[in-house]
Amino acid sequence: MAATVIDGKAFAAKVRERVKAHVTRLVEEHGVMPGLAVVLVGENPASEVYVRSKGKATREAGMKSVEHKLDAATSEADLLALIGELNRDETIHGILVQLPVPDHIDADKVLAAIDPAKDVDGFHISNVGLLGTGQKAMVPCTPLGCLMMLREELGSLSGMEAVVIGRSNIVGKPMAQLLLKDSCTVTIAHSRTRDLPGVVRRADIVVAAVGRPNMVTSEWIKPGATVIDVGINRIEKPEGGTRLVGDVDYEDVAKVAGAITPVPGGVGPMTIACLLANTVTACCRKLGLAEPEGLTA
Amino acid sequence: MAATVIDGKAFAAKVRERVKAHVTRLVEEHGVMPGLAVVLVGENPASEVYVRSKGKATREAGMKSVEHKLDAATSEADLLALIGELNRDETIHGILVQLPVPDHIDADKVLAAIDPAKDVDGFHISNVGLLGTGQKAMVPCTPLGCLMMLREELGSLSGMEAVVIGRSNIVGKPMAQLLLKDSCTVTIAHSRTRDLPGVVRRADIVVAAVGRPNMVTSEWIKPGATVIDVGINRIEKPEGGTRLVGDVDYEDVAKVAGAITPVPGGVGPMTIACLLANTVTACCRKLGLAEPEGLTA
Repeated sequence: MAATVIDGKAFAAKVRERVKAHVTRLVEEHGVMPGLAVVLVGENPASEVYVRSKGKATREAGMKSVEHKLDAATSEADLLALIGELNRDETIHGILVQLPVPDHIDADKVLAAIDPAKDVDGFHISNVGLLGTGQKAMVPCTPLGCLMMLREELGSLSGMEAVVIGRSNIVGKPMAQLLLKDSCTVTIAHSRTRDLPGVVRRADIVVAAVGRPNMVTSEWIKPGATVIDVGINRIEKPEGGTRLVGDVDYEDVAKVAGAITPVPGGVGPMTIACLLANTVTACCRKLGLAEPEGLTA
Repeated sequence: MAATVIDGKAFAAKVRERVKAHVTRLVEEHGVMPGLAVVLVGENPASEVYVRSKGKATREAGMKSVEHKLDAATSEADLLALIGELNRDETIHGILVQLPVPDHIDADKVLAAIDPAKDVDGFHISNVGLLGTGQKAMVPCTPLGCLMMLREELGSLSGMEAVVIGRSNIVGKPMAQLLLKDSCTVTIAHSRTRDLPGVVRRADIVVAAVGRPNMVTSEWIKPGATVIDVGINRIEKPEGGTRLVGDVDYEDVAKVAGAITPVPGGVGPMTIACLLANTVTACCRKLGLAEPEGLTA
């Protein structure tokens, strides 16, 4: 009995179609085009790739895309001034500052300066607080993507036992909040957890987000469980070269899991799709319009 | 083998002594007296009792206590104006608006108007967000009191299995965040949890905060576990009259637990003690002084 493979690439394409359909309606019925501004400081090659993909995906969804590429020597004050402008710009509904920023800039201060209503990364303290009290928030893209995949695969999550491995602020903790909001019984496990395999073995839903290659093996998994692998780890191949693997030993776990996301091609593609979803959501909330169905937490 | 009774009244007295000692140092060494303002709108008899006790405890700890009793007909605008004044008042380090407020006032709006640095109730969205990302926050008094009792009873909580029953914004969710910060493996259980007794039976630490009289019985408890009962429920006695009971069937659970808080006399007395602790903490943070030891999360 092999696990169902949750095809993140195909599902992300579906989410992007939903976004595009909603954008079309916003343009046609309300004369409004959602806009996303991405700010990049300095010349990190990986960041440049991400920013390019985000811009392309934004335009493909029919939205306005603005890219601000600032010199590595840009002062914190100038960056904050730009964010202030984008906060005031009515054609911009989402603002994303690509991390990391250079050392002379205080990232926390920069994130705190973004209007929470435009904070499509969901990292602003106000959004963490809103999510943490079950209110409408902008939700971080990666856990939102995991939630969408889980709902698509399982329907209602109510009453299921979920174990989140990892307690980071960008994945583990918001993931736990989202699963709790969907009425799972949620356990957060981490490096100090005593019997990690035993804890994970209770779960109907496992979300692994720790950054340890192939850590989760088949003995950790209750037969039939749904396994979402957020890890993206580059490891060396025996024959030379490198490859990407998740936190889950895919081949092994696929033998007992009910459903599983591969790496690559699982959670990864969902992240940009959810960034687009968040931008549309932010736009609709700003204008007091109905939120896009199937694109929010 | 009977459980250790965790005497909340005695421990609260100890916490209040710690607060008082720290206040004395602040006054003598820095010429600063922490100040707490409590705002009460309308004439709820229970609220008046609470406000009086808070004022008395504040003064007994050597701090400045200010009470604002406003007429039930006070407008939201006037209440917000008062909060603005208190935010600006340098002799006031903590502000507490006693809930509930009359129906014509939006409680969320009022809580959001309090300077997060003076939010000694820890209900402001910013404080929820700070706690939710492991940063320094003002922490709600009841879960802070539970944490203090657990640390006092157990020492380091790292690696312990904790189960929080109940997912309210004022107890369950912040409690889970605090236990996670202390490196417990944390599970949040609630009304949708499928096998609640089975889930609770895993726990080294149980915190019950659901408001269902005597719900937790001895079969739910792993022998030796520490049980914190946040519930305060008034039930009718067979012989007539009423009495207070917790969410835990005390007599029954005390037979198997390692330690347990009674109701009354457990968590209850800790709440005001933690309000005083939060006021001192807020004062020290405001002035950039060392935080009081043993009084923070």
